[in-house]
Amino acid sequence: MNEIKIFAPATVANISCGFDVLGCCLDSIGDEMIIRKSADKGIRITKITGEILPYETKKNVAGVAALALLEKLNTELDFDFGFEIEIYKNIKPGSGIGSSAASAAGVVFAMNRLLGEPFSKLELVEFSREGERLACGSPIADNVAPALFGGFTLVKSTDPLKIIELPTLPDLYAVIIHPQIEIKTSDSRAVLPTTISLELATKQWANLGSLVHALHIENYELFSESLVDFIVEPHRSKLIPDFDKVKQESKRAGALGCGISGSGPSIFTFCKGEQTADNVSNAISEVYKKTQIPYHVYSSKINTQGVKILEL
Amino acid sequence: MNEIKIFAPATVANISCGFDVLGCCLDSIGDEMIIRKSADKGIRITKITGEILPYETKKNVAGVAALALLEKLNTELDFDFGFEIEIYKNIKPGSGIGSSAASAAGVVFAMNRLLGEPFSKLELVEFSREGERLACGSPIADNVAPALFGGFTLVKSTDPLKIIELPTLPDLYAVIIHPQIEIKTSDSRAVLPTTISLELATKQWANLGSLVHALHIENYELFSESLVDFIVEPHRSKLIPDFDKVKQESKRAGALGCGISGSGPSIFTFCKGEQTADNVSNAISEVYKKTQIPYHVYSSKINTQGVKILEL
Repeated sequence: MNEIKIFAPATVANISCGFDVLGCCLDSIGDEMIIRKSADKGIRITKITGEILPYETKKNVAGVAALALLEKLNTELDFDFGFEIEIYKNIKPGSGIGSSAASAAGVVFAMNRLLGEPFSKLELVEFSREGERLACGSPIADNVAPALFGGFTLVKSTDPLKIIELPTLPDLYAVIIHPQIEIKTSDSRAVLPTTISLELATKQWANLGSLVHALHIENYELFSESLVDFIVEPHRSKLIPDFDKVKQESKRAGALGCGISGSGPSIFTFCKGEQTADNVSNAISEVYKKTQIPYHVYSSKINTQGVKILEL
Repeated sequence: MNEIKIFAPATVANISCGFDVLGCCLDSIGDEMIIRKSADKGIRITKITGEILPYETKKNVAGVAALALLEKLNTELDFDFGFEIEIYKNIKPGSGIGSSAASAAGVVFAMNRLLGEPFSKLELVEFSREGERLACGSPIADNVAPALFGGFTLVKSTDPLKIIELPTLPDLYAVIIHPQIEIKTSDSRAVLPTTISLELATKQWANLGSLVHALHIENYELFSESLVDFIVEPHRSKLIPDFDKVKQESKRAGALGCGISGSGPSIFTFCKGEQTADNVSNAISEVYKKTQIPYHVYSSKINTQGVKILEL
């Protein structure tokens, strides 16, 4: 096996009460990548379509994640080939649904497979985090974890890295609207408080505990009631035009919850069943139709598998 | 049925990462109470042993909780009898293991039973909270909830009140040491920060999510790793002599975790199996033996039932 084609999924991080720790994996939104062994050692990015992104390995998140894997491998065994990467980008960088995470997770998943799976998923998350470090300055794991593990994941700790795979509600859909505006990372960070009230924090962790419980007992109503963010959403939502209206209309159309995906500008909603997902798609599209802002709406089941092999 | 004798259990609240929301119920530590219907209307406390506590109904937590139930009942039906309460107190007030909660939960559980169970457990928690309001100035639910529901409970929200019953680890013991010092409520509140860093809060809620997951998948190791408190323990532990030593020795003896029970001064530990619980009991007793402070050590399985009927 010298070549593999994979689907690298989009992900939702910072899910309401789970700021910085809770993410989930999407099914019908993602990039494709082809990774092949090459006679030349090292990592080369040979093709990128869909977006303008750097070809230089060290400046590309997929390249950097691949190098992290290669570095670990080289300390363990001597091998005499390299890898070529082709990236067919569908997820827009800066959209808030894990564009860089998809590239980073996808490449290390594929390389691991071509190498006979010497690394665990947790190690793959470690390599992918290096891509995230390049993309956003910090080796965050809350997008790459769901991209690699699938379903809902909880980043219990980052040092040491510990990822928990949570159960998924079987009939759950994510509907996401991506308003095509740019929110600078610096702005979305600047609005975050560095300190928060103990009282609100207590409410937040009660909801996260409750949400984890809801996933275990497959209780959509409790899941819905737990999708509350007292801490981050009140600040970051100001950067997203018509956020409150999208939230209101999504709920009216039957969504279980609504919040900011990652650090925005995408807004996620969760829905039970495809029909409700369709209704919510329409309802939130209507909100943005009335603005001058271009947008995309995506609807997806939760992807319980993570990165998928398309061709071997 | 005119009289009932019950066991009103002690409880541990503020379990590490679950400050203000997570509690559990103990099995072999608690008060006994006898509640009987009386021809005279209203609530009378007719006997208290073990501790000096007020007999005046409105000044006694059991009395106040009973009155809250009676008030609700009177709005719904007209009935022509009252209740007498006997309290056989074993849990020391101010110990941090839910002394007032036991009295409040016990009395309303018993009255509800004598009345043919017109109220749900959630309603009983509401009545008991009025006892807590008298005892500590605030209608906290994190001790009365586990006292009534048993096992581990999460107070998802207080307004509206929503209690979640979590699963329990089957072979789990709580070992508790009660150093007989007085910590004033005002002091234990004063050391609490009103604001906390977002970074630490994030770690805290990751651990609470992880702990709820650990209970569901019966994973003692993950349960242990999740029993961390970044927020409250660093402040309140200063009020408890040799807290750090107790924690250290309990871990050395095999405890899964250790923290402050309620607002102290009691220190709880969790252990897997009776043998480890015995070892931990001995180890933490040794710490206090070297001090001049009198102490009690209790060891108990987790009580999955809550208040228990002793005699009908």
